Amino acid sequence: MARKSRSKQLNTAPESPGRFSYQGLDRVMHEKARLGILASLAAHADGLLFNDLKELCSLTDGNLSRHLGVLTEAELVETWKGGKGNRLQTMYRLTEEGRQRFTEYISVLERVVADGQPAVRKAGSTRSKLSGGWSPA
Amino acid sequence: MARKSRSKQLNTAPESPGRFSYQGLDRVMHEKARLGILASLAAHADGLLFNDLKELCSLTDGNLSRHLGVLTEAELVETWKGGKGNRLQTMYRLTEEGRQRFTEYISVLERVVADGQPAVRKAGSTRSKLSGGWSPA
Repeated sequence: MARKSRSKQLNTAPESPGRFSYQGLDRVMHEKARLGILASLAAHADGLLFNDLKELCSLTDGNLSRHLGVLTEAELVETWKGGKGNRLQTMYRLTEEGRQRFTEYISVLERVVADGQPAVRKAGSTRSKLSGGWSPA
Repeated sequence: MARKSRSKQLNTAPESPGRFSYQGLDRVMHEKARLGILASLAAHADGLLFNDLKELCSLTDGNLSRHLGVLTEAELVETWKGGKGNRLQTMYRLTEEGRQRFTEYISVLERVVADGQPAVRKAGSTRSKLSGGWSPA
């Protein structure tokens, strides 16, 4: 997993300062519901209607509106009015900037997944014993 | 968007309800700083001292203490007192439950990374044109 290091000249040695600070995990995108909205829109490049998003992300009207507001404010998502016939519908899709920034965010997540692999390998195996001198706090 | 299956029983079709709700992204672990602490501890199975964690995660004393408190409360992290010589040190490591739950969390992140791939592929390519009838809101 040798992704191009973009942010802050990433040093991937497990001991380097800030190695696990994950600066690239932008809080606007990292929030769980907004992450779902962004992934839904990434998977549907032509856009999604409000009700589709609501169902895909299992969000209430209020929550979806609120999170779409945050994403729009951050210029990650754009809104379109229109559709067939008389009934005006509202459609959302990623902006070009949104697509790029989400791609960058995903590359940081890939690093987190790679970092988590020692836990995956260890899970279920026997714990390492602490050498003498330590006691539970 | 016709499937009725409620997520739990994960349906990976991009149209299934709740497909992007990411229920497994436990808020205790998903918070950016705590994610860094957990990944640090996963990479250092024998445990880390407070100052090591502080440096690896680029956190202040106050923030690190607060987040360690949350992780300890959730029984993901355990605390040990001891060390060589007279000076008592405090060491933190993942509990066995912590290791397992972090592994589960990482597997959900892997799904998010996979879901983000359409954005990765699309980034930089030309936008799809909307068919007639839509206008910016």
